[in-house]
Amino acid sequence: MLTVVKIGGNVIDNEEALEQFVRDFAALPAPKVLVHGGGKLATRLSTRLGIETHMVDGRRITDEETLRVVTMVYAGLVNKSIVARLQALGCNAIGLSGADANVIPARRRPAAPIDYGYVGDIDTSALNVPFIESLIQQGITPVFCALCHEGGTMLNCNADTIAQSVATAMATVADVQLVFCFEKLGVMADIDDDASLIPAITPQTYAALKADGTINKGMIPKIDNAFAAIRGGVKSVTIKHSKNLNNTVGTVITNE
Amino acid sequence: MLTVVKIGGNVIDNEEALEQFVRDFAALPAPKVLVHGGGKLATRLSTRLGIETHMVDGRRITDEETLRVVTMVYAGLVNKSIVARLQALGCNAIGLSGADANVIPARRRPAAPIDYGYVGDIDTSALNVPFIESLIQQGITPVFCALCHEGGTMLNCNADTIAQSVATAMATVADVQLVFCFEKLGVMADIDDDASLIPAITPQTYAALKADGTINKGMIPKIDNAFAAIRGGVKSVTIKHSKNLNNTVGTVITNE
Repeated sequence: MLTVVKIGGNVIDNEEALEQFVRDFAALPAPKVLVHGGGKLATRLSTRLGIETHMVDGRRITDEETLRVVTMVYAGLVNKSIVARLQALGCNAIGLSGADANVIPARRRPAAPIDYGYVGDIDTSALNVPFIESLIQQGITPVFCALCHEGGTMLNCNADTIAQSVATAMATVADVQLVFCFEKLGVMADIDDDASLIPAITPQTYAALKADGTINKGMIPKIDNAFAAIRGGVKSVTIKHSKNLNNTVGTVITNE
Repeated sequence: MLTVVKIGGNVIDNEEALEQFVRDFAALPAPKVLVHGGGKLATRLSTRLGIETHMVDGRRITDEETLRVVTMVYAGLVNKSIVARLQALGCNAIGLSGADANVIPARRRPAAPIDYGYVGDIDTSALNVPFIESLIQQGITPVFCALCHEGGTMLNCNADTIAQSVATAMATVADVQLVFCFEKLGVMADIDDDASLIPAITPQTYAALKADGTINKGMIPKIDNAFAAIRGGVKSVTIKHSKNLNNTVGTVITNE
């Protein structure tokens, strides 16, 4: 079973949480793949450089200067920091953007209806699966940042989407489980009550939870991504707190 | 014959020269490896962030903040910009820091006599040659930035040294030629006179050229590096202008 883990920006931004997460990830049995965000650090560097950050529906508008910032922060600072830590823990990791070995080719998103700038949309069937397989066969753990590419330029992408795409593409050649780690226990009925964790969501319960407003805003694209992975052949998808990577606490997204 | 090419910061800093160089490099027959610097861009980002740059003998003192800057600029901005451009030209490149796949393990340099901070010294025999070979066998061109790693942290390194180490390590399994590209025609008897290019340097002529002061300052570590590569089994080393990558104009460093 190949495990694809996505770790979000709030953990990456917290030195202690990141250190613990990296230890837990290193302890996971191989084969495994890590996908990371880094948006908060990108926003902070933008601010220090006097570059304004514009978000639409939680997505970053990526002009030329912002593209340079996210390329520096995601592919440089965050990716290499995680890879070096994993190496020190005996996990032979390799950092990858989508341009490296042409592993995630993409198309720049059309400028209408919203011009997100240098943002890419991924065709999952175009991922370089043989290259990822060759790394795994050599005992190497790929660590993806949320960048893809087209036509000589990097393109910004959403880390959840990268994770879903990599998991779905790898599901054509292996059994894959996908784990989205973030700063909540999972999908919560009441965001302020840890006892309200929803242990499982099916398409039917998802429709009901959306209809009554329990699931809303940023959670919707995350769960849509999870169902897309299940439909694409991924065996299981879990949404959980990064501290629970190695236990079963979380929300399982399932088809039935 | 494996060609290892090093490209320096002055070319990387010049959009037009870089574009031309990347085209010339893409046109080189495979197998090939690229090693790049990026010091000028790192200095510029440091300045924008209010971080002072300190150099000793042309080497950057790398404190914690400077390490973050060079990791962002070398492994992120410059590396991925080059990789994406090569992909667009049909050259399947992969960007690597020394931490990726543990390809360049190093030791942090002792703090005496000069404390360079987060700077690494490479043991050429420790390089991950089988991994580089596996990339080349898959038709993939490695693109190295000048970073190595130890104990969970990235370490700054000199790009000439990385190029020499990679060339020497690969010389244990292949015939290797090493090419240092920069903004001069080669080693010049008179830096202001392009007609004064020295076409070849042997250990004997090198000693004489150093003794009479023709070769001095920054050129000395570059040529020392070149001779180290030759002693390590590299078949030929050339120092040349980046615009002459695909012709024979330059200075050949040779053992006899």
